Amino acid sequence: MSDVSSVADRLHSASIHLLRRVRKEDEASGLSPARLSALSVVVFAGPLSLGRLAAAEQVRPPTMTHIVSALEDDGLVSREPSTHDRRSVVVAATPKGTRLLQRARARRIDALVELLGSVEGEEMATLANAADILERVLGR
Amino acid sequence: MSDVSSVADRLHSASIHLLRRVRKEDEASGLSPARLSALSVVVFAGPLSLGRLAAAEQVRPPTMTHIVSALEDDGLVSREPSTHDRRSVVVAATPKGTRLLQRARARRIDALVELLGSVEGEEMATLANAADILERVLGR
Repeated sequence: MSDVSSVADRLHSASIHLLRRVRKEDEASGLSPARLSALSVVVFAGPLSLGRLAAAEQVRPPTMTHIVSALEDDGLVSREPSTHDRRSVVVAATPKGTRLLQRARARRIDALVELLGSVEGEEMATLANAADILERVLGR
Repeated sequence: MSDVSSVADRLHSASIHLLRRVRKEDEASGLSPARLSALSVVVFAGPLSLGRLAAAEQVRPPTMTHIVSALEDDGLVSREPSTHDRRSVVVAATPKGTRLLQRARARRIDALVELLGSVEGEEMATLANAADILERVLGR
């Protein structure tokens, strides 16, 4: 395995393990992982059509219809006419949905801060640099 | 936001974006994300009971029963008596399931290697160090 492959493999594993550790906090949101994940896409990338939301979440449209209906029943998202095409409908986050998502995200970050508690200054700088490099490479 | 919170937030975002980019490769496996993810847990952490698998994947046991049955129909996992307790059943990966998962993982790593193509030596070392720090912190 080349050096780059080895780094890619280790970054991939580290990302999986990081998210697996922090997603335990999501239970406090009261939403299932599928619903919270869909709400996250709506908050950060929405308003968007149900088809695009299903594609982003890699589920079939009927599955996403079911998830969106549940989020709508909880008052977390609403269906609205698209501003681009009044005949089509987009899914938008409500203020309640945005607040719920922000609290869930804050719980994850708090958990990660705790996990990073033993990391010293120089290593913390390495992590910060790595996050910046990754965000640049990943096109954000 | 404190420095550590900021680093935690950026690492969290970078991990999400990294996995979102590479998971597009998973389509080539022919399995849905839910089935591939469950198979991954069985390959890396199995054999394990259906209850533990459902907990690891944060889905309800009936949902996992459905996923495991589909994987079993494809010959990717099998249900076997537990070596600890012959009356209980565990889910184990078949050689075919392990091969499918390893190929899917290799496709993700290849995609990530491509994304890392523009990263120079010193930055690559930073990424490698960050991966090591994270793996240590996350207890792996």
